[in-house]
Amino acid sequence: MPDILPPDNVGLVTPQTHKFTTPLALDCGRTLDNYELIYETYGSLNKSHSNAVLICHALSGDHHAAGYYTMQDKKPGWWDTCIGPGKPIDTNRFFVVSLNNLGGCKGSTGPKSINPDTGKPYGPDFPIITVRDWVKSQARLGDVLGISQWAAVIGGSLGGMQALQWAIDYPNHLRHAVVIAAAPKLSAQNIAFNEVARQAILKDPEFYAGHYYQHDTVPRQGLMLARMLGHITYLSEVAMRKKFGRELREGKLNFGFDVEFQVESYLRYQGSSFVERFDANTYLLMTKALDYFDPASEHDGNLSEALAKVLAKFLVISFTSDWRFSPARSREIVNALLNKRKDVSYAEIKAHEGHDAFLMPIPHYMEIFKTYMQQIVL
Amino acid sequence: MPDILPPDNVGLVTPQTHKFTTPLALDCGRTLDNYELIYETYGSLNKSHSNAVLICHALSGDHHAAGYYTMQDKKPGWWDTCIGPGKPIDTNRFFVVSLNNLGGCKGSTGPKSINPDTGKPYGPDFPIITVRDWVKSQARLGDVLGISQWAAVIGGSLGGMQALQWAIDYPNHLRHAVVIAAAPKLSAQNIAFNEVARQAILKDPEFYAGHYYQHDTVPRQGLMLARMLGHITYLSEVAMRKKFGRELREGKLNFGFDVEFQVESYLRYQGSSFVERFDANTYLLMTKALDYFDPASEHDGNLSEALAKVLAKFLVISFTSDWRFSPARSREIVNALLNKRKDVSYAEIKAHEGHDAFLMPIPHYMEIFKTYMQQIVL
Repeated sequence: MPDILPPDNVGLVTPQTHKFTTPLALDCGRTLDNYELIYETYGSLNKSHSNAVLICHALSGDHHAAGYYTMQDKKPGWWDTCIGPGKPIDTNRFFVVSLNNLGGCKGSTGPKSINPDTGKPYGPDFPIITVRDWVKSQARLGDVLGISQWAAVIGGSLGGMQALQWAIDYPNHLRHAVVIAAAPKLSAQNIAFNEVARQAILKDPEFYAGHYYQHDTVPRQGLMLARMLGHITYLSEVAMRKKFGRELREGKLNFGFDVEFQVESYLRYQGSSFVERFDANTYLLMTKALDYFDPASEHDGNLSEALAKVLAKFLVISFTSDWRFSPARSREIVNALLNKRKDVSYAEIKAHEGHDAFLMPIPHYMEIFKTYMQQIVL
Repeated sequence: MPDILPPDNVGLVTPQTHKFTTPLALDCGRTLDNYELIYETYGSLNKSHSNAVLICHALSGDHHAAGYYTMQDKKPGWWDTCIGPGKPIDTNRFFVVSLNNLGGCKGSTGPKSINPDTGKPYGPDFPIITVRDWVKSQARLGDVLGISQWAAVIGGSLGGMQALQWAIDYPNHLRHAVVIAAAPKLSAQNIAFNEVARQAILKDPEFYAGHYYQHDTVPRQGLMLARMLGHITYLSEVAMRKKFGRELREGKLNFGFDVEFQVESYLRYQGSSFVERFDANTYLLMTKALDYFDPASEHDGNLSEALAKVLAKFLVISFTSDWRFSPARSREIVNALLNKRKDVSYAEIKAHEGHDAFLMPIPHYMEIFKTYMQQIVL
């Protein structure tokens, strides 16, 4: 909790919700007739509506990207390091829009929402949403806010995939795409980790085939395991070694199955606290959106062809110790853009924090990100 | 099932069991008064008893390392690629001993065995066994077989850790240690993966605090998840890509949570078939033995000091794409040995199979392994 908000903070913020009534046709073949998106904005939209920036969130993210809800909040929004006055996404210049994606569990329509056809929560009947569906719904939010062209669409990890999809699907509706710690598609290993996480949830006896809301319970163990596993892939081996090494919590071996090593304690805490703030059905949907993302698939696997019509300029950033989406994966995007002579800047940031680095105030990263954003003409 | 056994196969084999009645004091402070070890032997012990080789198994291994039990067997023992006439561990020269470790579930005393104090299976009351405990019990098996000095102690992964511990604890009782795809201790990341696997088992409602035998059930989901996760770490990203890529089992997306990608199908199969042949309590014990292994810890973390008194000559082998125990981890062992001017040969095999490479007939690996074994003086 900040006593006084620091001057580079966006301050106290309030989310807003928009109710959409135009049916949204989804990639899966189904249609959502009505849905709501919850979002926050920081900074002011200029007269010509040319300074809007869209923030796309990653797997467990939401619309609360910066600032505080109350002076009692312990933590600011999830990307407060990058959004605020004087920060890379400078709210003195930009009007920033950050939403919770469709299928989410933080206020936008998702599995926890009431299905108007049944009067009960959608649960497992909520359609599986793709990155393309999200981009389509985000474009509609842009329409509502009077934004016909974003100065930039920005995201890290799964958020970066949305920025990439934006450039492909709406070439005229953004001038810059900032794709951080992302990949043009998941590897078999990435899918494998997602599958273990899904099985942990799906096979939890408290999952009730996704109808756990009606049983007044949650698949706690499954979601906890999924999050523990996720955390291993978010941190690099070096980061784990620096953070925990082989340190024992009580200084000696116990010859039992209670927590012994510090890293176990960390993972159990991360897992169990996640259960309090996230929905298992949403987690399942998010992992599927990741697995399905593969814009090259419609072009016989040729990513350059998928990117042939993009008009946005790109900033692509990767982190050396990220083994979830390694620099090699970002270079696939960069090379595909260069093949088509697109305007792309690429930075490979030396960092030991692994995939999570994209959330951290690493000086070289902040500097490059800020410099790029500053040269965007409004 | 082989129609005719190939000439380089050890042929039909039969396990034997020895009942030990001298109490075994364990690292955890407890004592096993009686215990059995099941083992197999291949080849013949020479007159001077100088040609015996001990095979130490890895996490899910057992005593059945080579040959077949019946002509109907679909598969030979787990290391049949390396053990047999003319193979690296040449049974024309060597007398090979392979056992199931204490705490195992394939015939040696372990959690499934009856606890003489209660008349019921040990279950969770079976003591947590360390690599040092295993080595001690293996030395006793050597005594029973009349082997006072092994020509070589050999193992891959957790088996390699046992070979290393042998050289430390019984310097006069082996002439060679072959340490393949191992590490001098687990990293925080290795421990983290083990912890997720353990939590999957421990939190399975069918686990019943380890007393599932008495409930006539098994923690199927937990053990399955543990094995699925294990498999991800046994394969390299490249091996997964070559094996599965992003291929869809039915050629199209289903927008559901059934198996879609080939890699999901593979993992589910590996997970569920493992449940049929392995015991969850044993799995827990094995992961703890891995976590606890750290011979340098008694020497202020100085591995060279831990190895100061070894007399065995070493062959250390690693595989380039092994990310569970990477070549860098093997080099830690090699460098610690070199610091103390020990005799060590090191080979880093170019292989895309990941950690599992140590089980595979990779030509360069076979050649180096065989050449080393051939020069062992009997």
